[in-house]
Amino acid sequence: MKIGILGTGVVGTTLGTKFVSLGHEVRLGSRETDNPKALEWVQTTGQRASQGTFSSASAFGEIVFICLRGDVALPVVKSVGGETLKSKIVVDVSNPLDIAKPMPCPLLPDLVNTNSLGEEIQKLLPHSAVVKTLITVNCEVMVNPGLVKADTDLFISGNDASAKNKVVDLLHSLGWKNIIDLGDITTARATEMLMPIWMRLWGIFGTPHFNLKFVK
Amino acid sequence: MKIGILGTGVVGTTLGTKFVSLGHEVRLGSRETDNPKALEWVQTTGQRASQGTFSSASAFGEIVFICLRGDVALPVVKSVGGETLKSKIVVDVSNPLDIAKPMPCPLLPDLVNTNSLGEEIQKLLPHSAVVKTLITVNCEVMVNPGLVKADTDLFISGNDASAKNKVVDLLHSLGWKNIIDLGDITTARATEMLMPIWMRLWGIFGTPHFNLKFVK
Repeated sequence: MKIGILGTGVVGTTLGTKFVSLGHEVRLGSRETDNPKALEWVQTTGQRASQGTFSSASAFGEIVFICLRGDVALPVVKSVGGETLKSKIVVDVSNPLDIAKPMPCPLLPDLVNTNSLGEEIQKLLPHSAVVKTLITVNCEVMVNPGLVKADTDLFISGNDASAKNKVVDLLHSLGWKNIIDLGDITTARATEMLMPIWMRLWGIFGTPHFNLKFVK
Repeated sequence: MKIGILGTGVVGTTLGTKFVSLGHEVRLGSRETDNPKALEWVQTTGQRASQGTFSSASAFGEIVFICLRGDVALPVVKSVGGETLKSKIVVDVSNPLDIAKPMPCPLLPDLVNTNSLGEEIQKLLPHSAVVKTLITVNCEVMVNPGLVKADTDLFISGNDASAKNKVVDLLHSLGWKNIIDLGDITTARATEMLMPIWMRLWGIFGTPHFNLKFVK
């Protein structure tokens, strides 16, 4: 499958490397062509890896992953535009953290409680199927759920059931077994609002390699 | 121990009944003396149970539990006043839900993300030790953690370590084993913000008898 990834940070490159290792073709997108981090990633990752602008990676992917800082995700999606992403699955892996505030920072005030980043991206892309997932775990756990001892839970939100099914298949290929469909894209509020306890527990556990499990 | 409970709803009476069964004396407080629900609870719960006003229950308890709707907790605490609750442990079990909104309702806009109900109660009671806990589970699970299959996690927040230790002892007596101290009262933001996913999972699981566990 052709996968576009917007963002050259650790989340984007970790997911990209894993997808290439699973046989997919991956194009990493950044603000401008020949971003040094993207070039380095292409060189170390091999022939199914490529890089380009955000628009190039968006045009390339059948599925496009948004792996951007929460405060830049909306402007980047706006700059790419709905036409390029039309009829595609857009997987939003961004947390709307207000990183200008001291750590553990809160969420961005316009994207919390009665709104979410996932919903705002869906509003910008009315002809795309936005799916929110993976944001509740560190990126090394995203691509290797076995880093955490028990079979823990992952969540998925989105308006389009068929798009969610395709993303679930991809998550299964990463090793995820328990994927809870929370409902439409408004349920992204619930997973984005897990960030505050995640950040506290990161400090307490001394490792980002943990995840939650809901037990009946 | 003498325990005051503010609130005659299902959370207050469930905790009150359990504390009486463990040998404590419990006074249930409500807006006015001889509230019919409080009288009925006293009659069915036996001789260590009593009822009175919010102020009477606050004066009675060595530890005082706030088991009120989130939107009335602050006015009630204000009406009782800091003098009555001075030097006491005040356990806040209230969720700041904006129940005027459709279900699943958001949190109250002034008490989320950069603030919390726990913090606002602590500000009203500068000479009390406010401890936030138990809000992440249904009240039947609060008093019977064994309703959920695995040993799940409970969280505690508060500025006063010795007050938290006393509350942890009380939680142990309810059957709780894994109690994670998140830190000072500002960490109540993290547990209050679990309410949105809790409400979604309540719908999905079809039972309020579940809890989360963090796994390394």
